Amino acid sequence: MIKLAAMRAELVPALDSLLALKLRQDVPAADLQAAMTYSVMAGGKRIRPLLLLAVVQTFQADLIPQSLPAAAAIELIHTYSLIHDDLPAMDNDDLRRGHATNHKKFGEAMAILAGDGLQPLAFQWLSDCRFNDTIKIKLVHELAFGAGPLNMVAGQVADMQGEQRTLTLDELKALHQRKTGALLKASLLMGAVISGIDEKRTTALSDFADHLGLAFQIKDDILDVTSTAAQLGKPVHQDQAANKNTYPSLLGLDGARSALTAELDSARHALDPLVASTDISLLAEFLTELAN
Amino acid sequence: MIKLAAMRAELVPALDSLLALKLRQDVPAADLQAAMTYSVMAGGKRIRPLLLLAVVQTFQADLIPQSLPAAAAIELIHTYSLIHDDLPAMDNDDLRRGHATNHKKFGEAMAILAGDGLQPLAFQWLSDCRFNDTIKIKLVHELAFGAGPLNMVAGQVADMQGEQRTLTLDELKALHQRKTGALLKASLLMGAVISGIDEKRTTALSDFADHLGLAFQIKDDILDVTSTAAQLGKPVHQDQAANKNTYPSLLGLDGARSALTAELDSARHALDPLVASTDISLLAEFLTELAN
Repeated sequence: MIKLAAMRAELVPALDSLLALKLRQDVPAADLQAAMTYSVMAGGKRIRPLLLLAVVQTFQADLIPQSLPAAAAIELIHTYSLIHDDLPAMDNDDLRRGHATNHKKFGEAMAILAGDGLQPLAFQWLSDCRFNDTIKIKLVHELAFGAGPLNMVAGQVADMQGEQRTLTLDELKALHQRKTGALLKASLLMGAVISGIDEKRTTALSDFADHLGLAFQIKDDILDVTSTAAQLGKPVHQDQAANKNTYPSLLGLDGARSALTAELDSARHALDPLVASTDISLLAEFLTELAN
Repeated sequence: MIKLAAMRAELVPALDSLLALKLRQDVPAADLQAAMTYSVMAGGKRIRPLLLLAVVQTFQADLIPQSLPAAAAIELIHTYSLIHDDLPAMDNDDLRRGHATNHKKFGEAMAILAGDGLQPLAFQWLSDCRFNDTIKIKLVHELAFGAGPLNMVAGQVADMQGEQRTLTLDELKALHQRKTGALLKASLLMGAVISGIDEKRTTALSDFADHLGLAFQIKDDILDVTSTAAQLGKPVHQDQAANKNTYPSLLGLDGARSALTAELDSARHALDPLVASTDISLLAEFLTELAN
């Protein structure tokens, strides 16, 4: 079995159990707990927690068990962003991963509050996890910075405003780097913080993150054009309908595929400084998956 | 000049400058910066930051300058909660402090995102402030816990659901303790963390916080009944119109006034264990203000 598949088979169930358990413990109000749990446990692929864990596995594998709550905290932030993105005032989506979106199921007010509750809970979990205070405060910084108004929230604003005009490729790249890339990057850098790796290695991971994040979003754009609704668990061709700027809309489908290949290639080369001392195969597997 | 007035005269302008400056630095996207700044700088009384600073002033006055960013972080959380509470799906308010609410001014999507951006920025500011890592992570914990789904967000859910039925006095108390009390308490406890005071003193402050929080909300309920719109900067009698459970609606106006006096009295007595060693006059002044 390849490494990433083995890691996923072992750690995704562990993450899911931890998420469900901690939400039950920390959210006593039944309706709020139900709304928050519904979206957190809606079958996400846990890509961001897995990126954190893959870095820890690569550099400091014995810290994997302790790292699960920090990995889970990232998933709370990702989930809140999906709940709020789907709201009627935002993308107004009815379906997410084959199920009703949070506001369709629980109403708009509860969906807003479920998202609002997930954010501080993520930081609470980081403040409570089993690392020393210096590591914990660095984790808080990375997650807050990646999720914040310089990054993820700014990307969402740019995405919303971009619907009104055609962006240049550079503008689209900057948008994606903030909307999707920043949280993926935070996940990798949080893994670096936990592993205590030096600045040179952290810089390599940071470069890797920049290209991986773009590749991830280009792939998402391509799938919106080429998949069926059954495959995606949500309506397809949504981007076009919403006048979203995407790689296929700017470059055509073939151009988008070339851009994806180029980003994956750059991501792989960003890891070059690590190769002599580190087994990068686990990290490289994320690229292989995006290529297929 | 009495102490609290002097502190307010000196520190509120300092807080306001810091908030405006840091928002300009940390939120480069112009429209998002405008929306976030609009509500943060809308003339709030900064009561939560002042509570933190009053504790620091009482126990460790030399740390006041360093404490300003942590105090400012609380105001970001408070402001986000106001922006989201005012949304059409929530309280659907058009006016706040005499001005258009955030969504009336910037649209609903931007108001959601402005609130979403304020939350992580608060934790980023805490992670960046000039205390040691142990203090910083405790500050993160207190703020995340007070703002989270066990407290402030749960209180907002209970408030929304309470509109559909008459609560008992105990239920209303529990609602207020989470919706309003928890963040006021977090403010005081963050001051205790910064001041490094012992457990006995922290417990006294925590008891003080419980009664102060309730007194604060009872006063707010009373003002909604007795003030003019010009005095409050927003429409009055809103609670009644929204079928909100309030102290006046459950106990009558006189009963609510008695409850306020009782809570202020309990808050004052909660400080008794401190009196022998500490000048509590600054903290007691918050009670005097609520009594008038």
